[in-house]
Amino acid sequence: MAAAELVQLWRGGLLESTHRGHVVVCDEAGQIVQAWGDPERIIFPRSSCKMIQALPLLESGAAEAAGLSDAHIALSCASHQGAHLHVDMAGRWLSDLGLGEADLRCGAHEPYDRAERDRLIETHQKPCQLHNNCSGKHSGFLTANQHMKGGSEYTEVDHPLQRAIRAATEEVTGETVAGYGIDGCSAPNFAMSLAGLARAMAAFAAAPDEGSTRQRAMARLRRSMALHPELVAGEGRACTELMRAMGGTVSIKTGAEAVFVAMLPEQKLGIALKIEDGNGRASEAALVGLLVKLGVLEAAHPMAQKRLPAPQINWRGFNTGELRLATAYC
Amino acid sequence: MAAAELVQLWRGGLLESTHRGHVVVCDEAGQIVQAWGDPERIIFPRSSCKMIQALPLLESGAAEAAGLSDAHIALSCASHQGAHLHVDMAGRWLSDLGLGEADLRCGAHEPYDRAERDRLIETHQKPCQLHNNCSGKHSGFLTANQHMKGGSEYTEVDHPLQRAIRAATEEVTGETVAGYGIDGCSAPNFAMSLAGLARAMAAFAAAPDEGSTRQRAMARLRRSMALHPELVAGEGRACTELMRAMGGTVSIKTGAEAVFVAMLPEQKLGIALKIEDGNGRASEAALVGLLVKLGVLEAAHPMAQKRLPAPQINWRGFNTGELRLATAYC
Repeated sequence: MAAAELVQLWRGGLLESTHRGHVVVCDEAGQIVQAWGDPERIIFPRSSCKMIQALPLLESGAAEAAGLSDAHIALSCASHQGAHLHVDMAGRWLSDLGLGEADLRCGAHEPYDRAERDRLIETHQKPCQLHNNCSGKHSGFLTANQHMKGGSEYTEVDHPLQRAIRAATEEVTGETVAGYGIDGCSAPNFAMSLAGLARAMAAFAAAPDEGSTRQRAMARLRRSMALHPELVAGEGRACTELMRAMGGTVSIKTGAEAVFVAMLPEQKLGIALKIEDGNGRASEAALVGLLVKLGVLEAAHPMAQKRLPAPQINWRGFNTGELRLATAYC
Repeated sequence: MAAAELVQLWRGGLLESTHRGHVVVCDEAGQIVQAWGDPERIIFPRSSCKMIQALPLLESGAAEAAGLSDAHIALSCASHQGAHLHVDMAGRWLSDLGLGEADLRCGAHEPYDRAERDRLIETHQKPCQLHNNCSGKHSGFLTANQHMKGGSEYTEVDHPLQRAIRAATEEVTGETVAGYGIDGCSAPNFAMSLAGLARAMAAFAAAPDEGSTRQRAMARLRRSMALHPELVAGEGRACTELMRAMGGTVSIKTGAEAVFVAMLPEQKLGIALKIEDGNGRASEAALVGLLVKLGVLEAAHPMAQKRLPAPQINWRGFNTGELRLATAYC
């Protein structure tokens, strides 16, 4: 099936740009209850699957052994801003493990957080691996790896940790992985169908606090993200602002190349969407539209409106256009 | 006609993202010689039409009266980096007119140039309107406006300068404008068909140095851009690097929302393309593919390869994927 038109950019009363993609909503039984585009489209979930990648951390007992808090669990699922809050917490986490920044294998990049970026420039410091948006995930990887006594190169696809992540991925999606790519942070990223990802998110959404090891891990991951939205992304970012806007009732996570997932525990629904062109403005707008339609997000909430209609404010403060949903979507 | 698949992002041997769009090649007679997607698609050219917006500056005699050099003319067509080079030149230009930064109506934004950005942060200065990527275009607007004795609000759509730009736009595209939007820099941006934009580019490409006022203006604009690629964009940017790679034989210009145009004087061809989703990585790759096909750019040139296949280098320096042209394109 072809990608569906989902989001449009309008300017001066004319259509300027169009975003197509695929959206799947799954229920607790793993059944597709609604879809646009092709639910069987194979995608790379990128960072949207960080809660799946964290399953071995919890299920192995590593998180408990290391005394990780819900905040640590949230940070292990984060694509964070590299703000002082995130960098400091990841640094203390590694220190508590008897490890340091040099043990990370995520690489360094300039933080997205303006204050921290400017502080580095003003003090002539370079960003370190703790600033990498994935440093929380990698701190979780190192915690699990220490517990399982694996080797230092924990991002290699044949490393026991990545093998455990692959097994968990196949179990929660109900599919054999369709291959893998290397992510921006150098970890393997397992390819799956969009329906498989939505099915996994429904399982996370429906997982009870008391249940199997898998269910308890899923419930804690989902809950930790909603409890600490500021750790999952950061100020100004969609994951943080929209989870706050929904009052912690829904957990959401973005991934590079315009993937977005959501876990709706009250409805026991999972959502996965992918904009085919990889543009995050469109994945945010498409997710907002669907969350509003499902009754979990107020359309008039400023954090929703920031993304749909997403007024296009120019350098003099004029509103020059807006994003809209395509008529066939939501 | 539907948008055509033009560019794909591959990772781990799998297709990750897809970009569709429209491409038109026109000859000197204004005939379409090749097209993908819908040549009649109405688009906003955004900054790709700056050489059209500069026609009144040259044709009115304002450029000559103000003693503008080819470098000034190139800067009037620029979407520059806000590097010291650009900011300094725009500032001196305004000063020579007896005007200043406050006369600009483009608004301010952080410069894309890293050195200038870091200098501002280190010295606790805010960016000014000279840093705006359009400050050269607006300096050209102010030069034309001073010559025509127009009012200070030169970006208003009914201002004599914008009326002159609208008339020039209709003449070179051979179309009535399809409406207008407000651009990031607050100037009106007139909508046109992609074929109309390609037709205009072919007229620029074919314009002889000696000829009508219009032809001389077109030739000087095209030549000035190719003579001063560093002024049209800046270090690291596609317009600058690709014009250098082609040794000044072809003039090219990008626009927001993934528009790209090219003027090929030897072949007397004009190119206009628009990626429907607005992603610049795809417009750059699509343009490189076409310029290689037309024999004016070496596929193996490092500045071409940077954009096609555009290796996706991650934070540890690993190559994780690449852009490819869709099989039906080029």
